[in-house]
Amino acid sequence: MKALVVVAHGSRRQASNDEVRELTASMASHDSEFDKIFAGFLELAEPSIPDAIRQAAAEGAGEIVVMPYFLSAGRHVAQDIPEEIDSVRGELADIEIRLAPYLGKAEAITELLLKQAQVDEDQPA
Amino acid sequence: MKALVVVAHGSRRQASNDEVRELTASMASHDSEFDKIFAGFLELAEPSIPDAIRQAAAEGAGEIVVMPYFLSAGRHVAQDIPEEIDSVRGELADIEIRLAPYLGKAEAITELLLKQAQVDEDQPA
Repeated sequence: MKALVVVAHGSRRQASNDEVRELTASMASHDSEFDKIFAGFLELAEPSIPDAIRQAAAEGAGEIVVMPYFLSAGRHVAQDIPEEIDSVRGELADIEIRLAPYLGKAEAITELLLKQAQVDEDQPA
Repeated sequence: MKALVVVAHGSRRQASNDEVRELTASMASHDSEFDKIFAGFLELAEPSIPDAIRQAAAEGAGEIVVMPYFLSAGRHVAQDIPEEIDSVRGELADIEIRLAPYLGKAEAITELLLKQAQVDEDQPA
């Protein structure tokens, strides 16, 4: 079983955390190579990154991809998220855990932004 | 002439600001309805949102779309960016300035994330 953990920063504003949870629920409804998709948070919200990875493993994942839902490669992406992942590798030694590139690095983001810029704010988007 | 201003938060880390500038340069190389594309920053980097809008107007834009390069609808998206835009409406009364939905609201982001999660970190992405 293959799982994806989408990692967001986490916010004191619960609506922002819920937006991430809704996003991963929406992703799970699309066809993809992932059997299950989880949300995890670097700070300020639950579950933490290690707990999200543990949950994926507990639900039977043998391969887990962790993807930072971040727009730029700051310290969180370059250092904090890899460290969080490394903190559970020992206890989950049988499971392949891989870090995917962060969202902002996606080449297709340019087209998405151009498309989004043409959406009227008063239309459902 | 129609212009797009992509608004990022801005960072003390110059590489993050440069990532945004490179993104808007990349967007400008794609076919779209926008004749010119600018980067603007809410704080910590230049140009500011009002200055980016003024620059677009100075280069001949009659219509300017401002799009928040943000993943969630926090105070910056809901309040600060609209206020920055409103601060220049008086001096640019002949120009149509419209706020586009923020990136995180894009429906297509789910597919983009699923695609990005399948990219290997050690491949160019």
